[in-house]
Amino acid sequence: MAELEKMAGVRIDGLQYTNYNRELFEDLKAAGLDCVHVTLAYWEDARQCLTLFSKWNRHFVEHSDLIMPVKTGADIVKARETGKVGIVFGAQNCSPIDAELGLVEVMNGLGLKFMQLTYNNQSLIGAGCFETEDPGISRFGKNVIAEMNRVGMVIDMSHSAERTTLEAIDISSRPISITHANPLSFKKSLRNKSKAVLSALTERGGMLGFVLYPLFLKDGAETSLEDFTEMVADTADRYGVDNIGIGSDLCRNWPYEVVEWMRNGSWTFETVYGEGGAGVREWPKQPEWFEKASDFIKIESGLKRQGFHSTEIDKILGLNWYRFMDESFAPQS
Amino acid sequence: MAELEKMAGVRIDGLQYTNYNRELFEDLKAAGLDCVHVTLAYWEDARQCLTLFSKWNRHFVEHSDLIMPVKTGADIVKARETGKVGIVFGAQNCSPIDAELGLVEVMNGLGLKFMQLTYNNQSLIGAGCFETEDPGISRFGKNVIAEMNRVGMVIDMSHSAERTTLEAIDISSRPISITHANPLSFKKSLRNKSKAVLSALTERGGMLGFVLYPLFLKDGAETSLEDFTEMVADTADRYGVDNIGIGSDLCRNWPYEVVEWMRNGSWTFETVYGEGGAGVREWPKQPEWFEKASDFIKIESGLKRQGFHSTEIDKILGLNWYRFMDESFAPQS
Repeated sequence: MAELEKMAGVRIDGLQYTNYNRELFEDLKAAGLDCVHVTLAYWEDARQCLTLFSKWNRHFVEHSDLIMPVKTGADIVKARETGKVGIVFGAQNCSPIDAELGLVEVMNGLGLKFMQLTYNNQSLIGAGCFETEDPGISRFGKNVIAEMNRVGMVIDMSHSAERTTLEAIDISSRPISITHANPLSFKKSLRNKSKAVLSALTERGGMLGFVLYPLFLKDGAETSLEDFTEMVADTADRYGVDNIGIGSDLCRNWPYEVVEWMRNGSWTFETVYGEGGAGVREWPKQPEWFEKASDFIKIESGLKRQGFHSTEIDKILGLNWYRFMDESFAPQS
Repeated sequence: MAELEKMAGVRIDGLQYTNYNRELFEDLKAAGLDCVHVTLAYWEDARQCLTLFSKWNRHFVEHSDLIMPVKTGADIVKARETGKVGIVFGAQNCSPIDAELGLVEVMNGLGLKFMQLTYNNQSLIGAGCFETEDPGISRFGKNVIAEMNRVGMVIDMSHSAERTTLEAIDISSRPISITHANPLSFKKSLRNKSKAVLSALTERGGMLGFVLYPLFLKDGAETSLEDFTEMVADTADRYGVDNIGIGSDLCRNWPYEVVEWMRNGSWTFETVYGEGGAGVREWPKQPEWFEKASDFIKIESGLKRQGFHSTEIDKILGLNWYRFMDESFAPQS
């Protein structure tokens, strides 16, 4: 690990799901971001993920002046030094490993460094946050957690149900992540997290990324930057300033069909609307102060106005994610 | 690249297809081998290859004192320095990339560093040596060759037909390989190679690995070590000593069903016997002087008796493969 002081000022977004093109990669640069965790897959199986990786390989060829792949903490340092945006891959579901334990190491080798154990539904591993029942972590799930710990693939419980999440924190021998969610106290939502979860997560060294997806914000698109930074301050008061970051969940340049596919995958013939409200056939509207990646810089001034010191701001906007990724991406020694 | 003099004495087998276990990995060590190109797949598609990679990952975990994966020339140096046998993966067919150009880079990233453009049949890329017609390299094939050149995956034409092979040598911007075959002049076989092929191959810096699979030897299992080393000497006289090595094609610890599957895959409902002879339901018998990997050391004394100098022997038994792999595995600059 590079000395943390040297990495002060590093900026990392702990989750985005965007249909990138050159303009949008340039917007990541304009945001001052050194690294972004991007969603590779929602429902795709192992074979389909190979195609998704190959599409990203084309991005790396065509935009080699703007982006580079990240598999280690050292890669983040290199991205920063060369003025590129490092791209970390993650999946919002365990579908990339099919039902095959050995695929954890194979997918890790391909650069999948985050994996949610569930999306919104019951998976082969655990329960998603939209299920009414939550049986916790399955037999397969325990093996997957141990294997993710071994190879250095980070467990992400952003969309998982409460018991499944608490069990994952407990079973994992390494700190885990909730890359994009807010405290339940800020906004009642199936996706936001209870005090029990946030305490267990942060006590074990895990990371929470605050989300800017409007459905998980206090007043949706009307939520102010001040509301958001107040929530950050409240969370810092409760759980400290070392285990929090940003996971904006910024979704850009996708047609409506994509959010419908995120919700419905291939598991239903009916249209499920999630927390967006029945019949609402559009992406939820973002707060006007966070509509694009480069709005990331506004969070910095918001945190300043909220009274955070610059060393705290550095931690929240990147240094915590950097430290966590650097430690977590290494294979278990 | 490590200075070639420092690598004098490196020993590399340019192809084996063995069902390895601890005892057989120990036999690679006993052979003095620093690196072996092993066959990962014959007919398996992209998804099935992921499972094959995951099986090898278990070998690397369970026998980490004996073997390590090799993706670069530097890895071969490291294997030699740490007293391990480096394992390079290859496929005997282009099935690992399905019909998808982007999978060349994905498979290369997983460590597939050799790929035959065809096995014995017509593939999506070209004709195998058992076909009666040979249309040469297809449209897809030209793109695949360019992409293999770009990422540093080596083209292997061991099982390909004549025109397809000559076109691959010509189209490829980098030297290619025939990892396991002998000159046609030594033994008439669909699998052995003409003077036209061997001239074109070696003139462009490509490598030929002499094969010890009995069907491609002068007198089958009765072929003597002296017959074999005479062929090596004859080839060295014709094409020089810098582009030849060993690709033993040693097949060990497989039931008969495996050679049947190699020949029949899923492309026929009848039993095809290849050059083994109709109705022969067993693996062909090896010469008694080459029945196991550790018999590799006998080739050294055979070459000495044939009159080769020790610097020539070093080249043939490993240094040529090392130089070729080191150069070829690097991405195109």
